[in-house]
Amino acid sequence: MKISSLQNERVKRMVALGQKSSLRRSEGVIVVEGLRELEHCIHAGHEVVAMYHCPTLLDSVPACDCPCYEVAREVYEKMAYRGSTEGVIAEVRPRTLTLDDLQLPEHPLIIVLESVEKPGNLGAVLRSADAAQADAVVVCDPLTDLYNPNIIRSSIGAIFTVPCVACTTDECITFLKAHNIQILTAQLQDSLPYYDTDMRCGTAIVMGTESTGLTQPWREAADRHIRIPMNGMLDSLNVSVSAAILLFEAVRQRQS
Amino acid sequence: MKISSLQNERVKRMVALGQKSSLRRSEGVIVVEGLRELEHCIHAGHEVVAMYHCPTLLDSVPACDCPCYEVAREVYEKMAYRGSTEGVIAEVRPRTLTLDDLQLPEHPLIIVLESVEKPGNLGAVLRSADAAQADAVVVCDPLTDLYNPNIIRSSIGAIFTVPCVACTTDECITFLKAHNIQILTAQLQDSLPYYDTDMRCGTAIVMGTESTGLTQPWREAADRHIRIPMNGMLDSLNVSVSAAILLFEAVRQRQS
Repeated sequence: MKISSLQNERVKRMVALGQKSSLRRSEGVIVVEGLRELEHCIHAGHEVVAMYHCPTLLDSVPACDCPCYEVAREVYEKMAYRGSTEGVIAEVRPRTLTLDDLQLPEHPLIIVLESVEKPGNLGAVLRSADAAQADAVVVCDPLTDLYNPNIIRSSIGAIFTVPCVACTTDECITFLKAHNIQILTAQLQDSLPYYDTDMRCGTAIVMGTESTGLTQPWREAADRHIRIPMNGMLDSLNVSVSAAILLFEAVRQRQS
Repeated sequence: MKISSLQNERVKRMVALGQKSSLRRSEGVIVVEGLRELEHCIHAGHEVVAMYHCPTLLDSVPACDCPCYEVAREVYEKMAYRGSTEGVIAEVRPRTLTLDDLQLPEHPLIIVLESVEKPGNLGAVLRSADAAQADAVVVCDPLTDLYNPNIIRSSIGAIFTVPCVACTTDECITFLKAHNIQILTAQLQDSLPYYDTDMRCGTAIVMGTESTGLTQPWREAADRHIRIPMNGMLDSLNVSVSAAILLFEAVRQRQS
């Protein structure tokens, strides 16, 4: 099936979905753009509603049982928020995970972010969580939906490769306590250097926002407070950088 | 001294310096905006030529012997590339460091970046290098000048707190060999996990670009190839995230 008209209803729908988070929410769908991103999305078993492919931009499309439409370049560029850089875009109905859906191993490694100020930061954390093979990323009280186009893009699709849950801080603390997962909060006060902390047991690393740090419920729920030593003149690291340092310390301890 | 006219020659000069990297280069000066950034710049001993301060945006200015002008808000917003977020901006004549200017301890820790694609990435690496108290950041064959406004901003001033040198790959390899500093190149092929590598001796961690990786001269000059294990579905980490993981492994080994 080919689409060459900008007036086509499917084109109008994709444009609207790309622009309006309220429409995505009310319809329970998201927009996934890019070959790698879509491959990870399909591999993770999310339901692709329809795929749109511009043959002049991209030779092939990921294998998928969904309807696939060939679109003219002009049409593609109208639908895509990244212009002509990719060549494939899809409407997807994502499975939404809850904490109880998580299938955790005996000693899980989880990273918890208390809200997220910038989509790019969550995307970078997801890339690190994928590389560290973390068992879940939990975002508490998120300010933006997890499948925001900027998060999909900045994660290069890791939003689909790592189990990702949005919930409240209370729900998350209750879950971690019930599963005997130690809570390590990243904070400067009353804390140990992170490399002096055993992360081989079930561990949740909890990070606050760069601007305000962690809230009181997390500080009180913590089994240990850990810090990355700041040996220079500055007083903070980027949250995605901190998350990577802590995640890979867990990897190191578990593999060596 | 107060400036309230947009036609003032000093205002015109600051606007031109902010916009034209060629003018900054030919005059040997840079523009530093923001209180923290300027404090780090002054603390590092760079020569401030003139400082411009908007009292309605910021109460106080860093202590400095340079001429300081009070400017009206309208004038400030004209000069500043970050609008009204800061309140202080300065023209600075930076000391330019060479490799031979570096004052290195017995077992230095250096991070080397082979060119840099995005200013934001270098900024994030500089923040991590500050926190890890690295002895130098070396950028080989840089595509952009080190004191690019975006690098100053994204480093939150760490460009001034960490000795930072731009040079060629050949110069850098020669320097490291002459100083018996081991060269660890981050690459996936023929490499050991980074945590199985001793970083307590003098160490240079060398990273390529995200898109093309390291060039052949570095691969050949390396004493060891190291990798961050990629245990998930994706095949790369952000360069600033990788740099932070490797730098803090050196910190961990040296402190524990």
